[in-house]
Amino acid sequence: MNGCNDIKILLFGTGAVGSLYGGKLSQAGASVSAVCRSDYDVVKDRGIYIKSIYGDFHFRPETVIRKASEYRDNPDYIIVTTKVLPEIDVPSMIMDAVKPSTSIVLLQNGIDIERGIAGAFPNNEIISALAFVCVSRKGFGDVEHQDYGRIVLGTYPSGVSEKVKILAGLFNVSGIPVETAEDVIEARWRKLLWNAPFNPLSVIGGCVDTKQILSNTLTEALAENIMHEVFELSVADGHPVAVELIRKNIEDTYRMIPYKTSMLLDYESGRPMEVEAILGNAVRIADKYGKKIPYIRSIYAILDLINRTNIERGDR
Amino acid sequence: MNGCNDIKILLFGTGAVGSLYGGKLSQAGASVSAVCRSDYDVVKDRGIYIKSIYGDFHFRPETVIRKASEYRDNPDYIIVTTKVLPEIDVPSMIMDAVKPSTSIVLLQNGIDIERGIAGAFPNNEIISALAFVCVSRKGFGDVEHQDYGRIVLGTYPSGVSEKVKILAGLFNVSGIPVETAEDVIEARWRKLLWNAPFNPLSVIGGCVDTKQILSNTLTEALAENIMHEVFELSVADGHPVAVELIRKNIEDTYRMIPYKTSMLLDYESGRPMEVEAILGNAVRIADKYGKKIPYIRSIYAILDLINRTNIERGDR
Repeated sequence: MNGCNDIKILLFGTGAVGSLYGGKLSQAGASVSAVCRSDYDVVKDRGIYIKSIYGDFHFRPETVIRKASEYRDNPDYIIVTTKVLPEIDVPSMIMDAVKPSTSIVLLQNGIDIERGIAGAFPNNEIISALAFVCVSRKGFGDVEHQDYGRIVLGTYPSGVSEKVKILAGLFNVSGIPVETAEDVIEARWRKLLWNAPFNPLSVIGGCVDTKQILSNTLTEALAENIMHEVFELSVADGHPVAVELIRKNIEDTYRMIPYKTSMLLDYESGRPMEVEAILGNAVRIADKYGKKIPYIRSIYAILDLINRTNIERGDR
Repeated sequence: MNGCNDIKILLFGTGAVGSLYGGKLSQAGASVSAVCRSDYDVVKDRGIYIKSIYGDFHFRPETVIRKASEYRDNPDYIIVTTKVLPEIDVPSMIMDAVKPSTSIVLLQNGIDIERGIAGAFPNNEIISALAFVCVSRKGFGDVEHQDYGRIVLGTYPSGVSEKVKILAGLFNVSGIPVETAEDVIEARWRKLLWNAPFNPLSVIGGCVDTKQILSNTLTEALAENIMHEVFELSVADGHPVAVELIRKNIEDTYRMIPYKTSMLLDYESGRPMEVEAILGNAVRIADKYGKKIPYIRSIYAILDLINRTNIERGDR
């Protein structure tokens, strides 16, 4: 692993996020292979077309495989970009491709999502990464990147390793705004500050965008109360976010173009939502520290009910 | 007002509840006239047909009028059965028919719904009444009473007056199970114990029935948390309900046939929901006593957002 061309990356998931960032890393010179599931035939056949605010491009993975055991190389990085769902068992999914020198990168949403993977691979470096991006998959091998794009990453549970710096460097070369974080758990809490209210409320509030949530004084106050609970959890967890970010998040969201959250897009498509990664894990952390968080608990219960009904209806 | 035939009742609202109970009072011998709005032509022309578990019957009001000022008599009782909605101004609606001897009966849902009317008619008796009933209007002049039917009533704010007893007697004669309550505000809190969780959750939870709400351990716990807050408010308000009723309500609901709440029926028909009567007034009482009630506050905010969006969509 000396030049960029020697960096070997195995990508799990060629949805919106995996395609965009896998593609950019490939542009930067890394050798990126992809494990695909439902979209295997399309991606194998013609690669992935990406319309992006950074310029449209075509991403053809080095190899396209169906499962980890088909990978014949020694990956420097495994990058997991799947949704965080109870039915996706990440350790089993990646196990056959994990080598002693492999860093496992979790480019996913949610809080405390690293624990299970760190436990399953205690001798591998875990890198936790967050994407601040509006990107969606329009069809297999067909991705549209509409806005934003920044990546934040760090070694889990803390620190910035050499391999984090190398990966950040690759993103940087490809034109992606990138930051390394000494305390990546704090960065996750910070992202949750926005995600915990706005993703669930966009669904629970009757399929509404960010502007509609804030146009109602009661739901704006509820969003703020939820953020306060996230803040309190971050303090209890030893990774405090700045309390000023609560108002800043509200004000920034007022200025955003009205935005349909990714959770709402999942709901409307009948796909499972990341209820546990966004809210369930927060509730479990609250239980651990004896925190009440009734606002988060309320939306968690309602969202879980909606999610189960939605999946059942989709399965019919 | 000596015999039943001398009792004059003016009914406001010939929806499901008004038609059923107005009809039963008419059966019992009272002279019942009705103020109708959208259904005026139908009710004037052919009266109201009621399918009921107490036996089907036909209710033809003594007179059918469009507004209070058309009533030429001196009503012993005005019975208001409209929904409790901010856009329905009950004092203005009934004012022209209220005489010094008129008792104003509010046969409506919600908590603290009497205050405005008592303030507008300080010299009239206000009777507060609750219907525990499954009844729905299938069309103008066409009502179906599916289950239950008990009435609880008392003088507002407390006591059981002679006129309450006479009205209770009429219901009794007509075969309606009826109870008088010395503390009718406590009776309202007791009804809210069930209404506050189940009505809103049936809508917010993604259009679900009572069984679906209880089939999810998280929403069952949320329902119980909401009931606990209602209980605490009833204590603060000086009309404490029995705390055992919380578990009893949950267990009784388990045994009920899966039931679509009236709020869900309103939502599905694009009609405004009784958000303020059921939740908004509870929040204002909590503010008065400095109580937190975060669970009720959460569902209030979400339901208000859904309600506004639903009405806007219906208006399009």
